[in-house]
Amino acid sequence: MSDVKDFVPKNQTVNELVKQLKLTAYNARKLAEAVDIIEEMVEDENCVKFLGLSGALVPAGMRFCINEMMKNKWVDIIVSTGANITHDIACSFGEKYIQCEPEKVDDLELRKKKTSRIYDIISPDKTSIRFESEVQKILKEIGEGNFSTYELIGDIGKRLEDKNSLVRVACDNNVKIIVPAFFDSILGLQVWMYSQDHKMIIDERKDLDFLINLHYNLKEQGKSSGVLILGGGVPKNYILQSVIIPEKPHKYVVQVTTDVPHYGGLSGATLEEAQSWGKVDEKSKLCVVYCDATIVLPIIVSSLKERIYKV
Amino acid sequence: MSDVKDFVPKNQTVNELVKQLKLTAYNARKLAEAVDIIEEMVEDENCVKFLGLSGALVPAGMRFCINEMMKNKWVDIIVSTGANITHDIACSFGEKYIQCEPEKVDDLELRKKKTSRIYDIISPDKTSIRFESEVQKILKEIGEGNFSTYELIGDIGKRLEDKNSLVRVACDNNVKIIVPAFFDSILGLQVWMYSQDHKMIIDERKDLDFLINLHYNLKEQGKSSGVLILGGGVPKNYILQSVIIPEKPHKYVVQVTTDVPHYGGLSGATLEEAQSWGKVDEKSKLCVVYCDATIVLPIIVSSLKERIYKV
Amino acid sequence: MSDVKDFVPKNQTVNELVKQLKLTAYNARKLAEAVDIIEEMVEDENCVKFLGLSGALVPAGMRFCINEMMKNKWVDIIVSTGANITHDIACSFGEKYIQCEPEKVDDLELRKKKTSRIYDIISPDKTSIRFESEVQKILKEIGEGNFSTYELIGDIGKRLEDKNSLVRVACDNNVKIIVPAFFDSILGLQVWMYSQDHKMIIDERKDLDFLINLHYNLKEQGKSSGVLILGGGVPKNYILQSVIIPEKPHKYVVQVTTDVPHYGGLSGATLEEAQSWGKVDEKSKLCVVYCDATIVLPIIVSSLKERIYKV
Amino acid sequence: MSDVKDFVPKNQTVNELVKQLKLTAYNARKLAEAVDIIEEMVEDENCVKFLGLSGALVPAGMRFCINEMMKNKWVDIIVSTGANITHDIACSFGEKYIQCEPEKVDDLELRKKKTSRIYDIISPDKTSIRFESEVQKILKEIGEGNFSTYELIGDIGKRLEDKNSLVRVACDNNVKIIVPAFFDSILGLQVWMYSQDHKMIIDERKDLDFLINLHYNLKEQGKSSGVLILGGGVPKNYILQSVIIPEKPHKYVVQVTTDVPHYGGLSGATLEEAQSWGKVDEKSKLCVVYCDATIVLPIIVSSLKERIYKV
Repeated sequence: MSDVKDFVPKNQTVNELVKQLKLTAYNARKLAEAVDIIEEMVEDENCVKFLGLSGALVPAGMRFCINEMMKNKWVDIIVSTGANITHDIACSFGEKYIQCEPEKVDDLELRKKKTSRIYDIISPDKTSIRFESEVQKILKEIGEGNFSTYELIGDIGKRLEDKNSLVRVACDNNVKIIVPAFFDSILGLQVWMYSQDHKMIIDERKDLDFLINLHYNLKEQGKSSGVLILGGGVPKNYILQSVIIPEKPHKYVVQVTTDVPHYGGLSGATLEEAQSWGKVDEKSKLCVVYCDATIVLPIIVSSLKERIYKV
Repeated sequence: MSDVKDFVPKNQTVNELVKQLKLTAYNARKLAEAVDIIEEMVEDENCVKFLGLSGALVPAGMRFCINEMMKNKWVDIIVSTGANITHDIACSFGEKYIQCEPEKVDDLELRKKKTSRIYDIISPDKTSIRFESEVQKILKEIGEGNFSTYELIGDIGKRLEDKNSLVRVACDNNVKIIVPAFFDSILGLQVWMYSQDHKMIIDERKDLDFLINLHYNLKEQGKSSGVLILGGGVPKNYILQSVIIPEKPHKYVVQVTTDVPHYGGLSGATLEEAQSWGKVDEKSKLCVVYCDATIVLPIIVSSLKERIYKV
Repeated sequence: MSDVKDFVPKNQTVNELVKQLKLTAYNARKLAEAVDIIEEMVEDENCVKFLGLSGALVPAGMRFCINEMMKNKWVDIIVSTGANITHDIACSFGEKYIQCEPEKVDDLELRKKKTSRIYDIISPDKTSIRFESEVQKILKEIGEGNFSTYELIGDIGKRLEDKNSLVRVACDNNVKIIVPAFFDSILGLQVWMYSQDHKMIIDERKDLDFLINLHYNLKEQGKSSGVLILGGGVPKNYILQSVIIPEKPHKYVVQVTTDVPHYGGLSGATLEEAQSWGKVDEKSKLCVVYCDATIVLPIIVSSLKERIYKV
Repeated sequence: MSDVKDFVPKNQTVNELVKQLKLTAYNARKLAEAVDIIEEMVEDENCVKFLGLSGALVPAGMRFCINEMMKNKWVDIIVSTGANITHDIACSFGEKYIQCEPEKVDDLELRKKKTSRIYDIISPDKTSIRFESEVQKILKEIGEGNFSTYELIGDIGKRLEDKNSLVRVACDNNVKIIVPAFFDSILGLQVWMYSQDHKMIIDERKDLDFLINLHYNLKEQGKSSGVLILGGGVPKNYILQSVIIPEKPHKYVVQVTTDVPHYGGLSGATLEEAQSWGKVDEKSKLCVVYCDATIVLPIIVSSLKERIYKV
């Protein structure tokens, strides 16, 4: 192993910063290791790339980071909470999220002003109202049927005009978006409303069909898969468990989280624990960065842009 | 407000301990306040009671606490991760979970020995194998159709012989169990396998139908709802968001969690934040205990037993 | 290792609760293991017992738990932050701490009302004023000289009339109290003020002299030492490092903390890491409970009372 | 307040990254606000600047960041744990810290190999041996007497040849280093050994004298003080409490921590809570970034270099 080397602070690019952090310690070092693993993953042409999204990253301004990853073919499949997809679609209609000071707001006042809070972000009710009317229009266009979540989200994406929408970018770049807890979101509530008088069934077996067949195929073809998990939650578990039946461990797993192992939850479970389940194996490249993803994701994507495209 | 009073340590019952903690500080005080709110909630006959379950509480030995709550009519609806339901069903077949030392195990060795780890608990592969064969039999008995998750889990519960199974106890006590991310679990994988050659659709709109109608009815009847959230994750969000369309805030909300507000995730979001969404309002009784649920749940249920039944 | 056994909730004593938790998982199990190790430690007559105190445990109502431990000879040496000693002395003059709701207070208002906040506890300025006048009187009685922190605190303890004061109880039971960051406290500020026109030197070498000689003696006599660490901080490091020069690892170490290992700080460092320093060795009994000490300490002391004294 | 704006990932400098993060959310936004406050602080010529250091930041490779701050007059007084000073002095003798994988090491093996671990860093015993022999030589040169910690550390700094040592850089730039828990460190143990047959007293009243007089003077002169706190612990409390007697609130306070408020400890206490103590007031500029300091410090210092020196 290397000696620790003192970080030299100076006017430097994000990637230069990351390169230097590799020889430090704790989560700075882990961040640098994560970038190296993700770089190897995105340059591995025989690897299908997953992105797990939990936490309200889209209203926090992380959309373009995810879009950039999709446009560069650094992601093939996104597994997300419904909230991120809801917020993205709302943004695509021109709606905005507004910064606030969580220490200073009175939440009962916010309600009276018809606004909702996500930590230090405010979303006005008018955003939800607009979201409702536009989404109901789109669902009518889509019609009726039995949909996997990736099919329905794909069908919505095609109908979004905003080229900066991550749902639209996913569509344009053949990235599938799976939302395993689909009805646990405002988008889910809209589909529920629509389905009161239309035949629309969300059939999540089909999402699983797609994923499990994918891993069987990768196994047959000697190809691999890799994952960047932002947060934890259902997306983490879903992506990791999808390889259990095909018995095809993920080759690369990077998790950015602030959850800890010692309370027994899966969100904070170590990637070593995942080895005991066969979700990864002794050859897998593993890294956990314990940090807020809003700090780490911009650094990862900026650093990779510089490494790979020099721009 | 009261003066802090020094806790007197002595041979005492769990409820006596809790009563004393009420006059201390930090999470000891919060634990005592939580018990008071839950006591008020369970004695409120005009209140529908929810329990949110995330984290692997069943393999951690928390089943009987949940069963006790159901038998006493302290819970009407459980919203859970699929993992807890999976583990409960496995236990109902006589399978066991085994303690281990996370600092000392080698996860690659565990895999070679065909065992999987959940922090300090080991589950042998034979449990999964048994789970698979028994669940496939039960699914065949259930047949085909379009099921909400509470219907399917109810239909499984009826067929479990173990009277200590929480899925069975739920069934025996008319408690509905909803699993919003159904396919994100080993039980979900089994249903997926079964559905390869049987027509079984998991239609989660029906779960939402049930819940939203329930809240509309409660509103009409001037009744209320309350929640005990163990952990966070999808169960927390799902239970809280279910009142948004009916605009009927929960009256009681207690959360036991180790997640924090300042990373922006919903799991750690404060219950004040929930006020800005109308999920609770200014009259709601709110309490967060920052603690591992394996410590808090046994204390809450033992304390309530003593308060209400003196046994 | 044992199978996990479902916890049976019922009207039961604290010790019965703890006994049952031993067969569960996560921190519930750790809490039970901690009580077993501490029981073994307190019954080990050849063991000198340390208690590390950080966090504002005294204003939180934990004094009597610590007093109980001293009266039962379960503690020989306390290493504490100065704040806990300051608060105890203030309480000994009849001053009170008052509960508050941290979500609802305005800290600028609190200042205007001449009160200071410790999370959910309020301390009025009159407490500090009383503390100042009484402590200055006591210091005048003590006179001048060169003191270790345990000598000065012992000299103060003798002069406190309140038999419930932990500083007084320490005095009455020959427990030494060491405060390694002595001037980092309101008591330290008072000594600083006093020393403006009196010759009082706090000579912390003498604390270290005492401790290091103690460990050399224990080593010679084949005796041992054990530690209960509540929180982390300076008390943890100080107690653990005191065995490095004598090369006499602690035999028992239990830590109750909410700090985590992966940010690199000593407060959250694992006790395995302490093995690499020789602070503990392969025979040491080690246990970390990740939990708020205000919940765990009352349980530990009540449980031990029942086990050892049946009262 | 501003709308959230999507972060644009690209090849960019660290400061450009920070500028963009200002319009995002959670800790990314806080990091950007922290840099703005620190920029304002370092450009405020009427402000005395403090740096609080806890956690093993020096072995983690953060020395040059701190040196850079001192050389640019961005820091006037450092309050640190003894460990950081110990490690810096060891490095100044050419000793190295080595990276390791905490998941893979066996701490009992590390001890057998005569190495100690700090999370993911290894320190060989030969470093301590060298440290001992060199420090004893230096202490002999310094001689005998009654020293504040800043005087002794200053006297050591003068004698270090390594111009990259932070203790030396402090010396060269008239930065005082105060270590309130002086004997809670290996350096403290060395002084204790030396004092076995030499008259050396560490008189920490003198540190406090210096600080409290400083704040009285600042008050008289209408000047101010500001603080960057890395971690929490004794340095945080010590710097904040030093203004209580002079009643001169700090004007700028930025804390980078991973400690949380809800367990009641001072390390995680909010800066709003500090308002109730008068440590800061309504005009103070306050910011907490919840993040590992090894990630945040290199970003802050690199960003400031670019802003202020364009290099």
